Amino acid sequence: MSPPAAVDMQSATDTQLATFADRLSVNGVPSRRSRAPKLSGGIAAHTSSDMFKSPGRGKPRAKRWDHRLTEESKARQPSSLKGATKYLAKPGLISLGGGLPSSQYFPIEYIEAKFPQAPHFSEQETQESGIVKRTGKYDIAEGNGIYDLHVALNYGLAAGSAQMLRYVTEHTEIVHHPPYQDWACCMTIGNTSALDLAYRMFVTRGDYILTEAYTFSSAAEAARPLGANWIGIAMDKEGLLPSSLDSVLTNWDPAAHNGKPRPWLLYIVPTGQNPTAATQSLKRRKDIYRMAQKHDLYILEDEPYYFLQMQPYTGHDAPNVPPPASHDAFLKTLVPSLLSLDIDGRVLRLDSFSKVIAPGMRTGWITASEQIVERFMRHGEVSVQNPSGPSQIILFKLLEETWGHAGYLDWLINLRLEYTKRRDNICYACEKYLPKEVATWDAPMAGMFHWIKIDWSKHPAYGKTSVLEVEDEIFQAAIERGALTSKGSWFRANLDDPGDEVFLRTNFASAPMEKVQEGVRRFGDALRAVFHLKQANGVAKEE
Amino acid sequence: MSPPAAVDMQSATDTQLATFADRLSVNGVPSRRSRAPKLSGGIAAHTSSDMFKSPGRGKPRAKRWDHRLTEESKARQPSSLKGATKYLAKPGLISLGGGLPSSQYFPIEYIEAKFPQAPHFSEQETQESGIVKRTGKYDIAEGNGIYDLHVALNYGLAAGSAQMLRYVTEHTEIVHHPPYQDWACCMTIGNTSALDLAYRMFVTRGDYILTEAYTFSSAAEAARPLGANWIGIAMDKEGLLPSSLDSVLTNWDPAAHNGKPRPWLLYIVPTGQNPTAATQSLKRRKDIYRMAQKHDLYILEDEPYYFLQMQPYTGHDAPNVPPPASHDAFLKTLVPSLLSLDIDGRVLRLDSFSKVIAPGMRTGWITASEQIVERFMRHGEVSVQNPSGPSQIILFKLLEETWGHAGYLDWLINLRLEYTKRRDNICYACEKYLPKEVATWDAPMAGMFHWIKIDWSKHPAYGKTSVLEVEDEIFQAAIERGALTSKGSWFRANLDDPGDEVFLRTNFASAPMEKVQEGVRRFGDALRAVFHLKQANGVAKEE
Repeated sequence: MSPPAAVDMQSATDTQLATFADRLSVNGVPSRRSRAPKLSGGIAAHTSSDMFKSPGRGKPRAKRWDHRLTEESKARQPSSLKGATKYLAKPGLISLGGGLPSSQYFPIEYIEAKFPQAPHFSEQETQESGIVKRTGKYDIAEGNGIYDLHVALNYGLAAGSAQMLRYVTEHTEIVHHPPYQDWACCMTIGNTSALDLAYRMFVTRGDYILTEAYTFSSAAEAARPLGANWIGIAMDKEGLLPSSLDSVLTNWDPAAHNGKPRPWLLYIVPTGQNPTAATQSLKRRKDIYRMAQKHDLYILEDEPYYFLQMQPYTGHDAPNVPPPASHDAFLKTLVPSLLSLDIDGRVLRLDSFSKVIAPGMRTGWITASEQIVERFMRHGEVSVQNPSGPSQIILFKLLEETWGHAGYLDWLINLRLEYTKRRDNICYACEKYLPKEVATWDAPMAGMFHWIKIDWSKHPAYGKTSVLEVEDEIFQAAIERGALTSKGSWFRANLDDPGDEVFLRTNFASAPMEKVQEGVRRFGDALRAVFHLKQANGVAKEE
Repeated sequence: MSPPAAVDMQSATDTQLATFADRLSVNGVPSRRSRAPKLSGGIAAHTSSDMFKSPGRGKPRAKRWDHRLTEESKARQPSSLKGATKYLAKPGLISLGGGLPSSQYFPIEYIEAKFPQAPHFSEQETQESGIVKRTGKYDIAEGNGIYDLHVALNYGLAAGSAQMLRYVTEHTEIVHHPPYQDWACCMTIGNTSALDLAYRMFVTRGDYILTEAYTFSSAAEAARPLGANWIGIAMDKEGLLPSSLDSVLTNWDPAAHNGKPRPWLLYIVPTGQNPTAATQSLKRRKDIYRMAQKHDLYILEDEPYYFLQMQPYTGHDAPNVPPPASHDAFLKTLVPSLLSLDIDGRVLRLDSFSKVIAPGMRTGWITASEQIVERFMRHGEVSVQNPSGPSQIILFKLLEETWGHAGYLDWLINLRLEYTKRRDNICYACEKYLPKEVATWDAPMAGMFHWIKIDWSKHPAYGKTSVLEVEDEIFQAAIERGALTSKGSWFRANLDDPGDEVFLRTNFASAPMEKVQEGVRRFGDALRAVFHLKQANGVAKEE
């Protein structure tokens, strides 16, 4: 059987590619590892995805991006000190180089944590059947595992620990099967930091960057002080419209843009987009990728919500769709990533554990071509260095030693079903409490946000007021009644242009479900008050 | 009794300042806390050093640094989303704003760690009498403490957790008593990252930055791709020479420096400098600070080794100096920081837990004026965000709950004595094994490095070879014999100018003491071979 991602990729790019015989599955990991050299996971051990991934026979190599790199990024040199680590391989060498402190003085004997065992994931079940994993300082030397505090609490390299890099490389290959040969992963301290590093690689003061009309506000805010100008592309419930992207680029007029040539950097959140919850279909992704090829774009694919793809929405009274019956079935429910279509190596994908494990871990990873990952690491090693040792080793104990790849997919299936419940909960609340005369929405397919459109033409002062004034009136009226939402205008790519629509963003995954119900009820009351509609209890707003 | 730091500061600046009545000591912390509002340490709780420090009555306010900030830094706006958190204070409010996931889905029931109890700090003693601290998910709600995984594993703010920010603010005040009013701390993910953020605030492409002739190579490498040019100032065993600094600035010729005006940013490591181990005396620090005032410099004071100040070196056979008898006596052994002299608020001090707890924690903090800290945090919140939750909560359990400020000072005294032993060990090894005809050194007073000067005029090919060739010959000869050192030239501020001296840097704190002995012996053999000296065993080098 031909693997679906490879087929998609072919149709996306019209390139003939062999079906890769060495496609990795969860069950293939032990055999892959048995054929690889023993993991070298000592202090600041040199590591790279190459040590862990399939050879990628028959796949093309990534394009070069030298013409896209900033002066800053191109100027980065490997560290002379770190270059000296090559001598450490000499047998019997005593190192008086380096700046490592002795682990003898790390005042932590062990770290222990209790985790749920698949498939008993609830907090209650964790109490009852969770497993306790302990990490000592010298576990490796004592034959108790391949990672310990001696390593995790010392300095590391920018790629991250070999132990975690292996895990995320395998996971990335299982899920995305990048269709070019020389892809690589690098651990990060989360997508926000990884984006900051990516901007330093690609953005020169005065540049224009492409994104969706409504976009993740922190991503936009991070780039503005660097002198970037955002171009918001029109979108629908499947996110960015390829035709609008094409039109903006085809009709680009440098004279109208401070003399700047056509932009080529595209930032998008294809799945459960923040703030609109838009999720691109496979067709949409292929169309966007084709457009990226046509205009030689480089894509930053920011995917914190990728595994918050939910079951289809069936409405309040209809029976639920049965959960995925297997890991393969689960993986097939996921819309393929841009990375999985990326035969050119023109995608830098950002993955994070923030939404699927915990934000406080400050741990994620990027996947891109080796050229890009190398430049990224050169910056990382003189800035963020590597994720926290306690974070990495706790993740390792959980993902590698407790769950393995199979248990992690079970966890993600569990999250899918939990988020489905919460999504259904807010949709039900909206149906019950919001005045449909003014409020409309689509059931989110992914993520944690519900995006509510308000028909402000129904506002009593329409024609005599502005879109921002109406938005603020709704926002404040909801706060008065005890419900905090987020204003759509905060997420405009172009802050100077508020557009002519009013949206409010709500989060359905943070507050307990009954609070979300109550919050939406209050928000409905606020809308009725602002729009002078009959209150849900039958009392019209007093003037 | 007049506190010494205040006296120093007065003489340093010739400014009349009252002795501050509210000077904080370890024993004063409980009373300080009892007068402060209850710590608000919930998820992403707003926090600032102001909540935890002395009012600073009678102290001057910091100067403004608007004229020094980069275009990038000046352009930073507070996040609109984060601005909305002010509404969260409204009683009964249900938040559907924000992007927090529910802690229900953090798959960690608790984290536990075992720490030494003061003063039983050795690994052996920790096994026997260490204390185990557990952090549950809902400890705060359950009345089991003021910090838990519900908070630590969710998103945080750029200042760091309130719990850790309070600790480092108090610690900073106890140790440094900054002599101006509006100082503040902000947690970081380590000094390397904090420096990257600082450069973005202060360095514009083409700028010149001042530092010592030999300087921390990663700090230099981090700034070069940003277009910074380093000016290395002459130094002696007390580090940077104020007279040379004055001379460089006074005689600055823009025409000889791409038209750039006099530099004003100074990067220094005043204590146990990397690579030279130079430690500035109090007088040297005062002189440097005066020079900074004269030329309106802004100082980045990078102090990872501050608490690796050691007992005086007495030589191999002399009796050791008795350890500090009290916390006060210990604090008085420390050379006062530039921060403690800084009445203008012209110092951004970088502190790290890397060398005193463990590098893998990726946790430190900065101290600077509120204006600078605010700009720093604006960048942090759209890049590194905040230190890892597991790192912060493990540090909290150790520093706050296990040791308190008193126990932490005991730990630092213990480290002082341990590093003293290791320093004495390498000095003894050098006396025993190095050929004094060519190798000279000063016993380090602080840090983890030993800096060995080689008189290359004794080299057989002197006059027909270069300083870099001789350095490389020594470096390679040592590796051949199984000892890795670091080349002094790697640390030249000006990489194009190798200088006319040969130095090798050794680390005395990483390898076990007997390995250091053997490593130095091998290095001595290498030197004898390169310089054609009689070998220690009496056999001259064969030609």
